[in-house]
Amino acid sequence: MFLYHQLSTRFVEMISAGTLQPGDKLPSVRVLSKEQGVSQSTAFQCYIDLENKGLVESRPRSGYYVKFNPAQISGCTDTFVENPQPVHEIDDMITTVLQHSVIPNMTHFSINAPSEAMLPLAKMKRSVHHVLNNYPQQALSYERPEGNEGLRKQIARLVFDAGAQITPSEVIITNGCLEAINLALQATTNRGDRVAIESPTYYGIHQALINKGLEPVEIETHTHSGIDLQVLERHLVDDKIRVCVFVTNFGNPLGACVPEEKKKQLVQLIQRYNVKLIEVDIYGSLHFDDFRPKTCKAYDTADHVILCSSVSKSLAPGYRVGWIIAGKEYRKVLHLKLNQSVASPTLTQAAVAHFMENGRYDLHIRALRKALYMQSLRYLKAIHDYFPDDVRVTQPKGGYVFWVSLKPGANTWDIYHEALKWGISFAPGQIFSKKYDFSNYMRISFGLPFTPAVDQALKTLGDIVRSRY
Amino acid sequence: MFLYHQLSTRFVEMISAGTLQPGDKLPSVRVLSKEQGVSQSTAFQCYIDLENKGLVESRPRSGYYVKFNPAQISGCTDTFVENPQPVHEIDDMITTVLQHSVIPNMTHFSINAPSEAMLPLAKMKRSVHHVLNNYPQQALSYERPEGNEGLRKQIARLVFDAGAQITPSEVIITNGCLEAINLALQATTNRGDRVAIESPTYYGIHQALINKGLEPVEIETHTHSGIDLQVLERHLVDDKIRVCVFVTNFGNPLGACVPEEKKKQLVQLIQRYNVKLIEVDIYGSLHFDDFRPKTCKAYDTADHVILCSSVSKSLAPGYRVGWIIAGKEYRKVLHLKLNQSVASPTLTQAAVAHFMENGRYDLHIRALRKALYMQSLRYLKAIHDYFPDDVRVTQPKGGYVFWVSLKPGANTWDIYHEALKWGISFAPGQIFSKKYDFSNYMRISFGLPFTPAVDQALKTLGDIVRSRY
Repeated sequence: MFLYHQLSTRFVEMISAGTLQPGDKLPSVRVLSKEQGVSQSTAFQCYIDLENKGLVESRPRSGYYVKFNPAQISGCTDTFVENPQPVHEIDDMITTVLQHSVIPNMTHFSINAPSEAMLPLAKMKRSVHHVLNNYPQQALSYERPEGNEGLRKQIARLVFDAGAQITPSEVIITNGCLEAINLALQATTNRGDRVAIESPTYYGIHQALINKGLEPVEIETHTHSGIDLQVLERHLVDDKIRVCVFVTNFGNPLGACVPEEKKKQLVQLIQRYNVKLIEVDIYGSLHFDDFRPKTCKAYDTADHVILCSSVSKSLAPGYRVGWIIAGKEYRKVLHLKLNQSVASPTLTQAAVAHFMENGRYDLHIRALRKALYMQSLRYLKAIHDYFPDDVRVTQPKGGYVFWVSLKPGANTWDIYHEALKWGISFAPGQIFSKKYDFSNYMRISFGLPFTPAVDQALKTLGDIVRSRY
Repeated sequence: MFLYHQLSTRFVEMISAGTLQPGDKLPSVRVLSKEQGVSQSTAFQCYIDLENKGLVESRPRSGYYVKFNPAQISGCTDTFVENPQPVHEIDDMITTVLQHSVIPNMTHFSINAPSEAMLPLAKMKRSVHHVLNNYPQQALSYERPEGNEGLRKQIARLVFDAGAQITPSEVIITNGCLEAINLALQATTNRGDRVAIESPTYYGIHQALINKGLEPVEIETHTHSGIDLQVLERHLVDDKIRVCVFVTNFGNPLGACVPEEKKKQLVQLIQRYNVKLIEVDIYGSLHFDDFRPKTCKAYDTADHVILCSSVSKSLAPGYRVGWIIAGKEYRKVLHLKLNQSVASPTLTQAAVAHFMENGRYDLHIRALRKALYMQSLRYLKAIHDYFPDDVRVTQPKGGYVFWVSLKPGANTWDIYHEALKWGISFAPGQIFSKKYDFSNYMRISFGLPFTPAVDQALKTLGDIVRSRY
């Protein structure tokens, strides 16, 4: 990490903690440089970084001042009240939101993925060319069911970065993470089994269970620390849960990252009850802090964790390159994969392998993380400025989304329909649970680069929220 | 079609019918030209075509002579004797054959797909380049769950060529045909349902049923005309079949093409019993005769047929581009697709769409059909020359495979293992049925271009068969 970045991180901490208040003047570049024993250039770069993040402003001929404390609107409440809405209505809501999310020329705060502007189009293209020029025949032929060998090596490396030691031969490539989750469920469950999921959680996981005749058991999940282990244990005892499906790092929609100590406890818990954990780690590499959070797989001493992930949130949503580390279930999963779609496409796997082998993936992820962090702060400032005072927002340390709480009684489904008229979409809270009532919540993605148009759209959205208050 | 080709087809018919016998002298080019009212060049081209097909030979300073009548070894017998082998042993056999089929540097007569040498590598590459250069952003982004719009238009056209009138909005793109079949089964069946399949048939279909908790009911299928409708009707009555899965054109392993009149009867039958037909048409475009056989979907007046296909057997096995025309089940299938893998990869869909839009697909298919027909005749001649006299071979009018019957009591599983030692693989008959005993059958693919090495491998295989007789 660069020196200026370390310095800037310390300022962010001081601003968030309230040590530095909005309006406070910061030391001059010259003074900062002397105080911290860094070059003036580094001190200057630090202030530019803070300015880009929307936290400080420069006033002409006067210097730098604190502008905004992101913690001001933090503290999104965790409420778990039973949902009065029938499940089929929620299903209709999900379908509606999905259909709207592909309408062009709208500002989609509903999409939990990188915008095209943040993807390495030109470099990825070069990797495809490389494959076509060097392996024209292979690109057209069937890949092995377990997937491209080079890619599996790279995946093993990524999994190692997240704390778990595996070999390439343990990796099976899938059509995105969702296929990985589906395969894991097929390999570990029978119809009628109970499966623990987070609440709120990504509706796709819920629907995957329903399609397989499994019974979802929603476990209260907190914005700061993820799944509630006490509640989970109660359900493990009472409900004979067979499998858990959790997004442990920067989950959707909460953005919560399960603390490392708690991950250990979670693994111990599932080992004690001999339950499998299907761990989804699609956002783990998009951390805003310096260190990548580990996976539960890293603490999995007795092969109870099946790890699922993909490059859909980090590199190429449309390539559908995901993977599964199935442990003991490897042969079963491979057999299922073979029987469902033979193998994943050859060309896209080979291209992603080449992109990773050349270190381009690591470079890209570094830039993407930085951009997302910056965007998250700019969005937060705009929400603070434009939304009612009592609105509270999570402060995720990674990923793409804010979970925004409005005052009790507010209805984000109504707000959603009003916003559509203005060409704006977001994800209303209702679609993330069939058990609990999140009708005064909304999920806002900061995957779109922060532009004047995005700023204006957030202002319009804030006005709509105010008008419904 | 070219004039010489029409002429050559008539000679093939006369040779097959025995009107012209091996050893018979053919009229000189000059005489043929006069008799038929064609140019000498056309007459000459006709003889070259027949020579390429291995049916005639030119003797220096003497002229052309009939060399081989493919009908000589035709008449593969249809026997349906119950299989004494336990099902799990057959499962092990399937796994074994699949594992061997990826060993490099072997002559794989076991692979029912085009060899790389028969695929349009350079032109397909240009289509990928076109997509990358013209839509770099889209190529990385999610495709809609139903798939690329341009591709769906092209699929609608292909389906129309096979006799069924549909619109692009009825098409859903899948990860190959196997995903299409799986989606169709999920949309139309419940656990425990009975599903009629052909016998013998592709083991992948059998396994797809088992994975879904469905009960396969194997229906006797004949090498000439496909499924036995009387047997089918008996099972429809007795067994409460819910769905049928049939490969109607050049099915695997028989290569049978259900005659058009029988297709109509089949559709009437399933309509009468209110049963769905999942029709697999991956080989239909690879016809050796001038006209493409229709699909049952073409006769489907009351929406009982779900059509599944792909380009895996015709253009790009590794692209995993398939499709499903689900009729009334459209919404259900789309929902399942979305929940299983979100969408198919963007880049490969767009590339195939471009390849088709430019007429390259039609040109390629025409060349592929011609090459496959030629190869089938060369292989047939070699099998006739090298295998025991009583060996009989199907004469498919399309596709990739011969179904070869050895004398009763011969065991192709033993022959398979001996062949492996010589670097040769084929598909032993046992793996195509769990009900009937096909242990004296073998499936030989003619997907590899006929080279001296292939000729030698067929000779070796023939020697092995003889040694076991």
